[in-house]
Amino acid sequence: MNIDQANRIAVDRMTAARPMLTGLAKAGDVVPGMRENLILHAGPPIEWERMSGPLRGAVIGALIFEGLAKDEAEALALVERGEVEFEPCHHHSAVGPMAGVTSASMMVYVVEDSTHGHRTFSNLNEGYGKVLRYGAFSEEVIKKLRWMNGAMASALSDAIGDGIDLRALLAEALHMGDEGHNRNKAGSLLFLKLLAPRLSDPDVLRFLGDNPLSVLNPVMAACKAMADAAHGIEGSTIVSTMARNGTDFGIRVSGLGDRWFTAPAMVPDGLYFPGFSSADANPDIGDSTITETAGIGAFAMAAAPAIVTFIGGTPQDAIHATLEMYEITAAEHPHFNIPTLGFRGTPVGIDLRKVVELGITPRVNTGIAHKNAGVGQVGAGLVRPPMEVFEEALVVFAERYGF
Amino acid sequence: MNIDQANRIAVDRMTAARPMLTGLAKAGDVVPGMRENLILHAGPPIEWERMSGPLRGAVIGALIFEGLAKDEAEALALVERGEVEFEPCHHHSAVGPMAGVTSASMMVYVVEDSTHGHRTFSNLNEGYGKVLRYGAFSEEVIKKLRWMNGAMASALSDAIGDGIDLRALLAEALHMGDEGHNRNKAGSLLFLKLLAPRLSDPDVLRFLGDNPLSVLNPVMAACKAMADAAHGIEGSTIVSTMARNGTDFGIRVSGLGDRWFTAPAMVPDGLYFPGFSSADANPDIGDSTITETAGIGAFAMAAAPAIVTFIGGTPQDAIHATLEMYEITAAEHPHFNIPTLGFRGTPVGIDLRKVVELGITPRVNTGIAHKNAGVGQVGAGLVRPPMEVFEEALVVFAERYGF
Repeated sequence: MNIDQANRIAVDRMTAARPMLTGLAKAGDVVPGMRENLILHAGPPIEWERMSGPLRGAVIGALIFEGLAKDEAEALALVERGEVEFEPCHHHSAVGPMAGVTSASMMVYVVEDSTHGHRTFSNLNEGYGKVLRYGAFSEEVIKKLRWMNGAMASALSDAIGDGIDLRALLAEALHMGDEGHNRNKAGSLLFLKLLAPRLSDPDVLRFLGDNPLSVLNPVMAACKAMADAAHGIEGSTIVSTMARNGTDFGIRVSGLGDRWFTAPAMVPDGLYFPGFSSADANPDIGDSTITETAGIGAFAMAAAPAIVTFIGGTPQDAIHATLEMYEITAAEHPHFNIPTLGFRGTPVGIDLRKVVELGITPRVNTGIAHKNAGVGQVGAGLVRPPMEVFEEALVVFAERYGF
Repeated sequence: MNIDQANRIAVDRMTAARPMLTGLAKAGDVVPGMRENLILHAGPPIEWERMSGPLRGAVIGALIFEGLAKDEAEALALVERGEVEFEPCHHHSAVGPMAGVTSASMMVYVVEDSTHGHRTFSNLNEGYGKVLRYGAFSEEVIKKLRWMNGAMASALSDAIGDGIDLRALLAEALHMGDEGHNRNKAGSLLFLKLLAPRLSDPDVLRFLGDNPLSVLNPVMAACKAMADAAHGIEGSTIVSTMARNGTDFGIRVSGLGDRWFTAPAMVPDGLYFPGFSSADANPDIGDSTITETAGIGAFAMAAAPAIVTFIGGTPQDAIHATLEMYEITAAEHPHFNIPTLGFRGTPVGIDLRKVVELGITPRVNTGIAHKNAGVGQVGAGLVRPPMEVFEEALVVFAERYGF
């Protein structure tokens, strides 16, 4: 079997995946390998010493949330004593935006790929402002997390009922100006619409409705389910993971098993909130690049021209972003399409070979975190992964498969 | 003052209008001139003998709903005895989609233009399927109307609270793939989001969420408020009303008072539901052309490329529709803009002179009603008003102002 055939299998599996949101559960109860002293984080593996400010902040917040520490000093002491373990969300079938920090008693969305049967997970979205995923861990942040993981998660779990078809939701949202990564306004309203008749708590209805990112985390778990379906195909050069931990950008490749290829993460180009500039920005962070890996996000930006008010550029740039991504992908998505491009399917299945041969790295939409722990989001923009990770992966692929 | 100056005043008033949804009330209590034996209908004035099937069907349904008749035969007898009066919604600061039929005990949305102070009204949207506004009047239609005008209207009225800024809602919906006439998916979800925290009835939450037209009627009342603000400006050639009763298409002009200019309505071109064809279609019907009059609907179609799945054509046609409308309008809307056109304001303020001089009639998106009473919607498409109404109005304008 040649590479093109292997890639066809991988992409067919990715696009055939049908992720259904089936409920919520405590991470410790459902996430494989989850344990009390384990903190999951975004991106490739990283030790505490090399973690950036926002990831450290989120770890501190999670230890306080878990009751393992009562404040920052206790949390730091716990980490210094080596009593906390760190592993990537991606090693546990999970994904999380920005810091991606997930601990055992946090509630997670449970997504099941009804085509292939595997499950994936993601934590809950906190909205904009001072939030754990951007490294904030003040009392108000923890208090909101407790409410979200208590009353809200319980209400959502009851409201999901027979399950929500996230692929269908995303397909509709792409016709409503979303690209599914930085812009999830329509998707979040569709999510609210599906849940509302079974939600009676006005606070939950208000929180979901006021958060234009409420569906981001289920969408990321859905994209993880699609990407995982394409992983592990012998001889395939399809990129099945892209993720950043705030220090390194990492990728994994379908035909190269669980090995990460990493390089220093870059600082995004974008628009900053008033009072902030690129001098405040942390390098790129988060598992949300799973959206681009699955053929949405920046790859579907032509569907979301209004996003430029948030990330910069012009609507024409948004169209060019999508058109460029057709150059480095293996297929056009049979379920996700873009009305302004004549309903053309989104570019899906990043082919390592094309990235290196054409010198075009994948485009990524992203939020921008402050580089210090405890601050939060300072902007949003665009970024590209470092080319080295693709070059190194291709060299290893050539060695492994001997071409 | 010359015509251009008068038109500038009219369009400035139209775009400065800020329609706020303030509540719901019984038509008989708030609509000026409303009375028990009066049925309001869409479009220009028309007597029973000339009414089309869907309008007659809706009148029969309204008489049953009001308890003035117990069935079709009684309703027809009442009308034949001359005991029912008919007047256009537009003569009572009101608008209604399709048949537009509104009777005294129906609940209406109350919209107030907070810039100029006048109020406008619209009835409640029944969703798709067998509905009064398409001339259906079976028991199930009347039963649903009773629930909507009872429990639902009461819940909505309580939930509106301090009011909803419909101009802001529309501006956001145009960034989410709506054009505000035939496609109100995003706007209806934004409407749901604003109301949901104060709605506790699951049936109401489900009905609103499942109806992608739920916000159409408040939007129409908002457009009526904007159009009314532009009406009655001495020397202005701006079209301030376009409306159809299923038999005639009528317009009114800002500088020509309350006189209608009418001609036979055309049959729309469009896509038909399975089992129906243009042979089943009624001529164009409804007050919903108030959206195009106010600079959205077909005029904003470039914002809604996905609409072509519903009305036919291609996304490129949708862009051309908007671009063409700049030719016959006086201004670009300062509040409504279209991302794919580089955030250009929508074309607003139809100038009678330009329509006649360029031979370009306004474009209209519309639903298509079955020509027989009691059937309902059979499709959706595009239509243009007959050119004669603009030509006649321009002749009268020239006579009146002596140019």
